[in-house]
Amino acid sequence: MSLVVIGTVAFDAIETPFGKTDRIIGGSASYAGLAASYLYNKVKIVAVVGDDFPQSDIDDFNNHGIDTEGLQIKKGEKSFFWSGKYHNDMNTRDTLVTDLNVLADFDPIIPESYQDCEYLMLGNLTPQVQQTVIKRLRNRPKLIVMDTMNFWMNIAWDDLMDTLKLVDVLTINDEEARQLSGEFSLVKAARKILTMGPKYLVIKKGEHGVLLFDNDSVFATPALPLADVFDPTGAGDTFAGGFIGYLAKVGTINFNNMKNALIYGSALASFCVEKFGPERIKDLTEEDINARLKAFVGLSRFDI
Amino acid sequence: MSLVVIGTVAFDAIETPFGKTDRIIGGSASYAGLAASYLYNKVKIVAVVGDDFPQSDIDDFNNHGIDTEGLQIKKGEKSFFWSGKYHNDMNTRDTLVTDLNVLADFDPIIPESYQDCEYLMLGNLTPQVQQTVIKRLRNRPKLIVMDTMNFWMNIAWDDLMDTLKLVDVLTINDEEARQLSGEFSLVKAARKILTMGPKYLVIKKGEHGVLLFDNDSVFATPALPLADVFDPTGAGDTFAGGFIGYLAKVGTINFNNMKNALIYGSALASFCVEKFGPERIKDLTEEDINARLKAFVGLSRFDI
Repeated sequence: MSLVVIGTVAFDAIETPFGKTDRIIGGSASYAGLAASYLYNKVKIVAVVGDDFPQSDIDDFNNHGIDTEGLQIKKGEKSFFWSGKYHNDMNTRDTLVTDLNVLADFDPIIPESYQDCEYLMLGNLTPQVQQTVIKRLRNRPKLIVMDTMNFWMNIAWDDLMDTLKLVDVLTINDEEARQLSGEFSLVKAARKILTMGPKYLVIKKGEHGVLLFDNDSVFATPALPLADVFDPTGAGDTFAGGFIGYLAKVGTINFNNMKNALIYGSALASFCVEKFGPERIKDLTEEDINARLKAFVGLSRFDI
Repeated sequence: MSLVVIGTVAFDAIETPFGKTDRIIGGSASYAGLAASYLYNKVKIVAVVGDDFPQSDIDDFNNHGIDTEGLQIKKGEKSFFWSGKYHNDMNTRDTLVTDLNVLADFDPIIPESYQDCEYLMLGNLTPQVQQTVIKRLRNRPKLIVMDTMNFWMNIAWDDLMDTLKLVDVLTINDEEARQLSGEFSLVKAARKILTMGPKYLVIKKGEHGVLLFDNDSVFATPALPLADVFDPTGAGDTFAGGFIGYLAKVGTINFNNMKNALIYGSALASFCVEKFGPERIKDLTEEDINARLKAFVGLSRFDI
């Protein structure tokens, strides 16, 4: 049994009000895979890179126990590259460069050894590719979590609707929930989105925390207030990796476990933003994570 | 012993995407006083109106057990009038009309019977008037909670700084916390504001909930996600009234009780936005309030 993460493994160049990086490792599968690896020991990645991608970074994944058999390396081609600049509020950003490179014709090949997939994390990619992965798995995973973004709502609506029908959990941000549903109220947006396929909806609100909806209930967790947010890149993917990693660890899917999964995801995401790229989530200790979980309990617990 | 609320008692005309009102009752002391009256039975108001203010609305206050001896009625003058229009997001609004009328030269007279004030809520008014109230109380109240807004930061900075030195709790929204401190990070903003006088800082974030800081701790509560927000006017004052009303009820000031006070304030504010003006908070039952508190517990409680 395993947790398969599909997404991008890529290079990013990031500028924030606090500094600037050259090409560093990024991509949704990198963040989600690393985050999940702290909670579950059978994490497997499906992604594609060019032969410009350093072996040392693949070794990094393997050292976290992440299986990279499904990471295709395209000879003579270049890895996906994204460059962006964050505004002073750190919530909005401009994309400076998007070089699809190997991603342009990504065909997600599922190694035979991945057919034991029980938990599937569909990182942000074209809905068509996300759907292909589901169809190539001979057994329907116990849990499919899907991330997406406004870009696909704009250019691939029908594919997105088809893919949504196949998943259990959708994770999007508040603006995306509004766009997807055409409703301003997040309660109404959730009601509508839960008729599109997913049984659970996770709405990510950045510094304002996360909401979880199913048809009967709603749960909210605040984000940990941080003195310094250094780089928000990858926080959403780190959250998603922690979220599904926790559910894989406990093995039972219900609303109560999803609440805790939200806390674990939020805790891991709170580390992610403390340094550039995935640097901070590369070498977390169990003590680090436990201390952060304790901070979340202190932040939210009251006794009425 | 009593809870004294100083603020405005006024007329509002409100337009939201859901409808429009003629002149209805509004003002910070109206909302805060009504909210506090559900939790504490010795609430007293200091405010000023013109003789255009209906006796039936004063009777409403009295029927809630609110003492109106400190509500001055100026013969031949008009009550403060505010008119505003909310944008579609319901978080931003344009002020259409501000007629100060009786408020222009408001001298807050403290009746002798109010000198037993133990809990003082300074609703949003000029910092100079807020300060006058503190100075006219012979005994320093056990707890002083102050609300203010960006407007006073722009035009009465020095008075605001002087008044801040005299209070225990400041309640402002996130943008105001950033403006007051010059810090974007709310953690850094809180650290700075807590050197200006208040021992506790409450940051109101509307639909994103509330943060509470002291020098050692932080607590966050989400807002209850609502399908319909009809009119946000007065939600912040209702919150403040519920907050100080709860503390007056329990009688002990510490961080733990403040957490619960945040929940009570948020619960009352969640009613306020369901109808125009203070209509919804005029006739709440104990069952209504308990059910809403239970909803908050369900919304926030997890077990790690």
